Formats: sequence, C-alpha cells, structure tokens
Amino acid sequence: MPSPDPIAVGRAVDARTDFAAALFETAREASRDVEGVTRPAWSDLDMAAARQVEAAARQLDLETSWDPAGNLLATLPGQDRSARRVLTGSHVDSVPRGGNYDGHAGVLASLTALAAFRDLGWTPPCDITAIAMHGEESVWFGTAYLGSKLACGTLPDGDLDRLRRADTGQTLAECIAGCGFDVAALRAAKPWIDASNTKAFLELHIEQGPLLIDADQPVAIPTAIRGNVRFPDAHCLGRYDHSAACPRAWRQDTALATAELISRLEAWWIEQEQAGVPDTVFTVGKLFTDAAEHAMTKVPGRMDFTLNFGGTTNDFLETSAVRIAELAAEIAARRDVRFELGGRVGSRPTPLDPGLRAALIAAAEAQGMQPQEFATVGHDTAVFAGVGIPGAMVLVRNTNGSHNPHEAMAIEDFMAGTRTMAAAIAAVAG
Amino acid sequence: MPSPDPIAVGRAVDARTDFAAALFETAREASRDVEGVTRPAWSDLDMAAARQVEAAARQLDLETSWDPAGNLLATLPGQDRSARRVLTGSHVDSVPRGGNYDGHAGVLASLTALAAFRDLGWTPPCDITAIAMHGEESVWFGTAYLGSKLACGTLPDGDLDRLRRADTGQTLAECIAGCGFDVAALRAAKPWIDASNTKAFLELHIEQGPLLIDADQPVAIPTAIRGNVRFPDAHCLGRYDHSAACPRAWRQDTALATAELISRLEAWWIEQEQAGVPDTVFTVGKLFTDAAEHAMTKVPGRMDFTLNFGGTTNDFLETSAVRIAELAAEIAARRDVRFELGGRVGSRPTPLDPGLRAALIAAAEAQGMQPQEFATVGHDTAVFAGVGIPGAMVLVRNTNGSHNPHEAMAIEDFMAGTRTMAAAIAAVAG
Repeated sequence: MPSPDPIAVGRAVDARTDFAAALFETAREASRDVEGVTRPAWSDLDMAAARQVEAAARQLDLETSWDPAGNLLATLPGQDRSARRVLTGSHVDSVPRGGNYDGHAGVLASLTALAAFRDLGWTPPCDITAIAMHGEESVWFGTAYLGSKLACGTLPDGDLDRLRRADTGQTLAECIAGCGFDVAALRAAKPWIDASNTKAFLELHIEQGPLLIDADQPVAIPTAIRGNVRFPDAHCLGRYDHSAACPRAWRQDTALATAELISRLEAWWIEQEQAGVPDTVFTVGKLFTDAAEHAMTKVPGRMDFTLNFGGTTNDFLETSAVRIAELAAEIAARRDVRFELGGRVGSRPTPLDPGLRAALIAAAEAQGMQPQEFATVGHDTAVFAGVGIPGAMVLVRNTNGSHNPHEAMAIEDFMAGTRTMAAAIAAVAG
Repeated sequence: MPSPDPIAVGRAVDARTDFAAALFETAREASRDVEGVTRPAWSDLDMAAARQVEAAARQLDLETSWDPAGNLLATLPGQDRSARRVLTGSHVDSVPRGGNYDGHAGVLASLTALAAFRDLGWTPPCDITAIAMHGEESVWFGTAYLGSKLACGTLPDGDLDRLRRADTGQTLAECIAGCGFDVAALRAAKPWIDASNTKAFLELHIEQGPLLIDADQPVAIPTAIRGNVRFPDAHCLGRYDHSAACPRAWRQDTALATAELISRLEAWWIEQEQAGVPDTVFTVGKLFTDAAEHAMTKVPGRMDFTLNFGGTTNDFLETSAVRIAELAAEIAARRDVRFELGGRVGSRPTPLDPGLRAALIAAAEAQGMQPQEFATVGHDTAVFAGVGIPGAMVLVRNTNGSHNPHEAMAIEDFMAGTRTMAAAIAAVAG
C-alpha cells in the first residue's frame, strides 16, 4: 500500500477540523483558570487533557498505552510491527494561567494526523505513534522536558526525588505516583525510546514569536533549536550610600555598574549579529534592586539579574560566556563592586534533521504553502535529537506569544501545520 | 556681659560630655527596635525623645514649651526678650530601624550648647532657643521637613489631612492630635518662626557620607544644601516576548532601553563634573522588572525605576531634567518602547549664609580644628533658609552612612561639632 500523497493527506486532515477544534475546547474547559488555562505537570489537570486524547484515540481504534513516566502513547499499527516507528507529539502541561496551545497543539496535531490516516484507510509500513508528554514546562519542577527525558533516560539520577513542584513542594516521584503510575517500575525501567526503536520524531508547536505574523504565513519549518548560556541568579554587590551625601568617587553603585554590563553586552551582541553570527538572542529578563532595602534616595548596594544568551552555534554561546566574565571583571575592578554571576546553566544548540526538514518543506510546498525557515526555541524535540533520534518540527503562526492567557492561534493555521506534518509523516513512514 | 570666647565655650561644652552621652543612651533605650532605633514622626517614640530633652532642659532651668505643631522649644532667655533670637536644633524622628544620630544628634548638640552657656553663667543679648522637631524623615508621610514647614507656614494647605502615615494610614492631623496637641489651634496658627523673630538657624547633623572619614577630620561646615530633580515613579513600557522566539528587531525590550538611558545619563553626569559643575550627584535607587511577570526567559515588557539628580546650582538641575527628557525620547523612538517618567519632584539648592558659615569656621579654627567644606544634603535648615532666616550647619563625621541601624558616631566627634556650633552661637548671639 503506497503512502497517500500530500494532497490526499491534506484533504483528510482538513476533514478533521471539527474533531481537532472540539478537542481543543474540551481541554480548555477541563483546565480553565481565572485567566487562560493551568495544566501543571503530572496533575489531575494535565492528566485530564491526556485522558481526553486517550478516549479520542480509542474511538479511532488506535492502540493506547501509558509509558512508565505516564506519557500517553496512541499508535496506528504498521505492517511491520518490529520496524522502527515514527514518533510524533508534544506536551500536555502548560504554565500557570498560560494558553491552550503551547504544547497541546502538538499533541492534537499528531492525533489529528492519525485520524486522517485512519480515514484514508492507510496502514503504514511501520507504526506511527502519537505521544502526549508531561513536564515540558520548567516552571513546575525547575527543569524542562521531564517526560521526554524520562523516556530517553537522560534525566539525572536522583531527580525523581530531588526535583520538587515549586508551588506544592511535592517531589516529582510523588506527583507521578499521584497520577496513578508505578514509580517503582519507572525507577527500574530502562530508557524506552531510542534510535533503535524510533526512526524520527516530529513535533508541531506554536511559534511563540512574531516571525510568521510578519511574513504573513501560517507555517515554518525551523532550521535548528537554539541552545543557550544562562546565568539565572547573578548579583552585583556594592554598598548602600546616601544619594546626596556620597560623591561619585566614593560610590560602589551596583545599578550603574549593572547598567554598564548590560549595555556593553548588548553592544557586543549587535556586533556579533552584524558580523554574521546567525540566530543570536540576548535577554535580561529579571533585573531588580532589593525591594526591602532600595529607595530613591539610596545608592543601591545590590542588584540581582539574569543573563541569557541564545544561539545556534556552540562557538557563539561559549564566546558569550567568556565575554560576560571579561566585562564583569573589568567593570567590577573599575567601579569597586563585585559581580557574582552564580551558576551557569543552559543547553547546546540542536541541529534539526536535514532529511526530515526537507520532507516537511516538500509536504508544505506540495500543498501550496510557502514554509518559512528560521531557528526556534527549546522543545522536547531537542531531547530526542540528543539521543540520536532524527527530529524536526513544524511551527504554527500565533499571536500574543506564549506562556500567557492571551496566547492565540487560528484553527486554520493549526490545520495548515497539521496538514504539513501529516503529509511529511506519511512520506517518512512510507 | 561679653560673649564667652571660643576656648571657654569649648571647655564648657566638653565638660558636658557625660550629659550628652547619657541623653543619647536614654533616647536609644526608649526607641530600640529589633535593629537600631525607630522613632516615627509624631508618635509615642519620637515624643519620648522630645520629653527626655524637655526634662533635661527643665533641670537646666531653661524655659520649655511646645509649639502648635508639637515641636519642643527650650530657651535660654536673653537680656532683650524682644530681640530676634538665635534658633538651633534638628529633628527627633528617625527612619524605621535607623540609627540614633540622624536628627537627634542635632537636638542634643543644641541642648548641650545651652547647658554649657548655663554652666558659664552667661546671659546672652538675645534668646537662644533649642528646637526638637518632628517629621523630617519623608519615610513616614511621604514628604520631608514637616515640623519646620509647619512652623514656617510652608506646608501646603490641606496636607494635614491629605498626608497619611505610610504604615498606619493615619493622617498627619490625627498623628499630631494623638500626641496630645491641639490641631484646631494648629490650623488657626499663623507661621510662628520667621525672619522677624529669628535671626539665625544653626543645625548640627551627622555627615551621612564618607568625606570626613576620608579627610580624617571630625567636623565640616557645609557650603550649600543640594537641591534635586527627582522622578520617583518612572516606567519604561514595552512588550513581553519569548526570550528565544523573538529576534532582536521585533523586541520592545525595556531592560535594555532603561540600561541605555541610565548609562547615558551617567556619561552625561561625568561630562558635567569634568566640565567643572560642582557638587553633582546622580542616583538610580530603584530599578526593577515586575516580580509578578518577569522571568529569565521573557523579554521584560516593563521596568520601573527612579531618577535622582542633585546639585548646588539650579542650572545643573534644570539641564538634568531636559537631558532626561531628550534621552528618553530618543531611546524610546529608536527602541519602540515608551518612557513614562511620571511626576517630577525635588527642591531648589539652598545657599548657606556666608556670615554664619564664617562664624562656624572661625569657631572651629579657634579651637584648633581644620573644618572641611563641601555641599550637604537636605535638612530642616533649608526650610528656614527658604523663608529668609539665615542658616548654616555643622556636619559631624560618622561611619556607615545613615538611615540604617549601623549608623555610628564617636562621642568625641559629636563634642567637636558641638564645641564648634556653641562657640559660633555665642558669637552670633553676641
């Protein structure tokens, strides 16, 4: 049985528009918060979204199961059940008072693709499995991609008991057990998703940025996932002084020192960009004097801040870290303050698979789209790629970014992304 | 009866060292907090300090009274009771968990000077009145110098009922009444301290800065009181964006915009200093992203900050305000953010009286001191000078600044400052 062609797949996907829209609504209803939705990782609320997917998958006569970490699997069986499968999906958890699409759009795109394949009566050569994962959002346990890391065996030993949910204090193990999963079995399990059983991972996700809106296009095929170098807990320490009684030469002013550090890092960033380094970003997301001590009339003796460089080359990220340290040392010596940058965290850039990207671009173009190409941000795809499973993504245009209740996505754009991904899956599986 | 000479005054003051030290200790005991002392304006706690001064003044056979605002007056009667008096003193209130010296040192210096005059058996030509005032610290009612402004009639109409104590919400009128004073009489009172009844105001205060420590000298005679231009509630408004999904060209990044504003204002400040503009200061005391919204992984859509330029020339202050507006407009346009600078507050610089300054310098030098000269910060003296009463000050070396529990002053330095002020009072009264 040949793979259905992109046009046929696209039509079958479009015929499932109401199916997808209804699943978005039932998920929203089950996790509606004061504003937006809240689906904590491994909670009744993200499990409700996963169970809705499970019920819909059963109605499609897909095989459903829950893996040792509580990720939901829904499989369209292939002709050769021992062949390496195509895996596709995303995460069901959201940030607190977030949107309905960051994560769940990818889960529903994968299920909608399988529904379209069922409607076409297609039995693929290999299994095609949709996965709904937990714990992608770092807000809950301080670390991202927990569901995929557990599946791939890349979560550090001890994290099941060390990581605690920020709001409730429960450990990750307790939360997983609380959802009815066997943590003893999870602890004993070997990694169950790897390159020996999975030949590709494909994930649809809302863009979370402005580029598709700007390009007036619904779909992008990202080139790479940015890595980053982050200092989440940096300080500048100086001395509090009277704002009028202390002349400039005696000050150890942390606000002016930190402003200089930030401005010079920005200038360096722009230089790098102008020199042709691709896909760079630099963000100071938190920057604050101490609310318990600061006053308009005090030279501030302490600033807290974060530094966050992102890019698609290791060279840029490592050079950023060096540049931060150099500038901090130079400014601290001249201004008689001390920078404590704190621990460095981050991730390496993840190249996305050229073959899968080409398949996605071809699938979109065959359906008359003009897919955009640019770098994207961290997603579960990076975890699978990290253990050698070829990965690629589809980004869907959305307004108002993500991680907020105003996140918005048109169902037409979602269907365009799903058509693209489904047609590529058909090509890759076949 | 001739005025006593500076050496005689100095000896008489020094003989009252234990008297002064004991009054510092009783004040500290009455207002001790978890750390440091807390003497809210018009409270049981600052009234306790004032009542200790009243009791000591009565033991010295000084005339004591409370003015309509609840400021304590202790007078050494002069030969001509109708002659314009010499007024000297400072404030009894402190900031929360502040030090024992900011304010109260000036009150006790004035009382100690009167004790020395009593010990010398001197009856001055005119009255010499020590004053212990309330409400100099702006932390309590959001506005500084309340006691002196009430006495001079410069508190805006309606402030008695409009200003509220920040922690309790009580109005200024309620607090004054709560200390047992007749607010109806206060409302009806004409200004009771003016140039027709007061020929000089002299105030001792701790330096609150590092210059006397650096000069290894106990005493300074300030040249002027800095004025200031302040923006207590400035914001930069942009847009929150995903730190990795939003490329630079699309960002409306308030942290980078505000860092640029601050760095460029600092550069301008240094240029002014290098061009010879005297006594300038620039402080960004508060600078913060929104704790409810910010994250390491979000481009910050809002920064709050304060701007505070100080100086001894109106020209510098007005030019500062212009420069802030120019830079904010230029940066906002280029970066697609909006600066809302909020209300401008501040004060004009106050020249200190050349004749009184010369008398203070002569008094210090006659006693073998090398008084330093530099600009100082806002004090009650500025209020009296503002209504035409010649004013001057004595600053006393202290460590650890002020407005904190670690504020420290050696009693020897306090006595040196009090010797200086007492000898100058004797000269000015005589």
